[in-house]
Amino acid sequence: MKAERYYGIDVGGTSVKIGLFQGETLLEKWSVTTDTSDGGKNIVRDIVKSLPGPAAGAAMAVPGAVLPDGTVNRCVNLGWGVCRPTDEFTALSGIPCRVLNDANAAALAEQRLGGGKGRRSIVMVTLGTGVGAGVVLDGRLLVGARGTAGELGHMCMDPLDSAAACTCGHVGCLETYASATGIVRLAAQAGVTGLDCKQILDGAAAGDAALEAVADRACDLLGRGIASCCALLDPEAVVLGGGVAQAGEYLRKKVQDAFDRYAFHACLGTEVLLATLGSDAGICGAALYAMD
Amino acid sequence: MKAERYYGIDVGGTSVKIGLFQGETLLEKWSVTTDTSDGGKNIVRDIVKSLPGPAAGAAMAVPGAVLPDGTVNRCVNLGWGVCRPTDEFTALSGIPCRVLNDANAAALAEQRLGGGKGRRSIVMVTLGTGVGAGVVLDGRLLVGARGTAGELGHMCMDPLDSAAACTCGHVGCLETYASATGIVRLAAQAGVTGLDCKQILDGAAAGDAALEAVADRACDLLGRGIASCCALLDPEAVVLGGGVAQAGEYLRKKVQDAFDRYAFHACLGTEVLLATLGSDAGICGAALYAMD
Repeated sequence: MKAERYYGIDVGGTSVKIGLFQGETLLEKWSVTTDTSDGGKNIVRDIVKSLPGPAAGAAMAVPGAVLPDGTVNRCVNLGWGVCRPTDEFTALSGIPCRVLNDANAAALAEQRLGGGKGRRSIVMVTLGTGVGAGVVLDGRLLVGARGTAGELGHMCMDPLDSAAACTCGHVGCLETYASATGIVRLAAQAGVTGLDCKQILDGAAAGDAALEAVADRACDLLGRGIASCCALLDPEAVVLGGGVAQAGEYLRKKVQDAFDRYAFHACLGTEVLLATLGSDAGICGAALYAMD
Repeated sequence: MKAERYYGIDVGGTSVKIGLFQGETLLEKWSVTTDTSDGGKNIVRDIVKSLPGPAAGAAMAVPGAVLPDGTVNRCVNLGWGVCRPTDEFTALSGIPCRVLNDANAAALAEQRLGGGKGRRSIVMVTLGTGVGAGVVLDGRLLVGARGTAGELGHMCMDPLDSAAACTCGHVGCLETYASATGIVRLAAQAGVTGLDCKQILDGAAAGDAALEAVADRACDLLGRGIASCCALLDPEAVVLGGGVAQAGEYLRKKVQDAFDRYAFHACLGTEVLLATLGSDAGICGAALYAMD
């Protein structure tokens, strides 16, 4: 454990969360509003203005692809194109800064300090508006040659399901079934409208048969996708996070059961776990990345 | 490049291939018959007897899972259960020895010296009786928590295709479509019997419409599986090897086209390449692993 201080910065489309860490201890956290005007050109300056003082290092988690050399390749929600926000951060603050994808930051945090603590290799699946994943292998993030590793949501589950049109342009991607949006879509297909994802999963957990069938379908596909992912990567555990995973043990058990139905025999025993760090995962993961 | 000498040993069910390397140069190679009697207990002794002299190190590529600690977890074709053949090798020869899975050895060799040369991250797909893969990320092999990473052949493509029963106990695994066995099965489904995989692909390449439809189906599924794999791992390139890949450019182009149809947009540009080392890939990869 290092005693120096580090900033972990989670840059979201609405607000930027910032944490000051000493080793793995969060000393304080705050946030600043994300100013997406003018192509997001004020965001880094606003972050630096809010910092209480110097630090040994910092890292920014951003909602977009980050190339292995630290170039950010578009963050639509921030207004950023291809850019190097860390160069500006360091020029303004004098603090060395790294950058990583936000799903990867969450994965690193959950592996070191959260639901995956004690495992060296995990896949962290974030179930939100879409389905993303961060992959930590032997304690290190998998970034990918183009910075896009972990796109579990775009695993094709059924290339013929034209009702499952994905924002990426293909059909049958895992996120068209297992994201919050996908679960609402599956419910609509089953004739249930007017409920959001949380209401659907709450109703399913309370025993509504039609809603439980929707939850079963989403979890079956998610478990099958995770089984294919584990056949390839053979991690110790899979950690479920994001808004949909707030359905907790009800969801976790259904996904574990589906995984066990589809898993390659050598991967049986891989645990499906729940994330535990909630909305602090981004700042924690960024701080850990800064310390690495 | 190291100047010391290393043995690269590829332990197959019929014969053991052995190469003596100086750096990356193969000085000589030979083979010994694999004696699978008595649970394969003579195999290591026979290998050591054949060695012409001392070396700085050695590695064995074996047809089974290898745990991260170097324990071999069953090689059905050799008669081996859970064992540590490297301990016996070193005791008999005085030469330090490592062990790795044979598909992983081929992947390492193709990444460093073969079809994937110049790329730091590749997925090497071996199309033989089954479908296996070896994953090299940032120049290092992905072994997996249980030593079973790279089981691309057991990615589930269609959980409802009961005609596609896999040896693993599930249905719809990629290898039930894209292995030599799978291609023969698809041909039989289309009413074509009595041809082996090579004859089917040769006929398809020569313009036989029924056989070309079989090749198209196999390559469509393979390209789709590889696209899902690349969405997760984002390698620089995919290398096709094994007996089926001897169909060469005809197969490669069909797989590249299918990949391009299914790939997540950020992964477009990933090249599908052919392996170049042939049957020397195992000894080369083992020698490289010994030097690492």
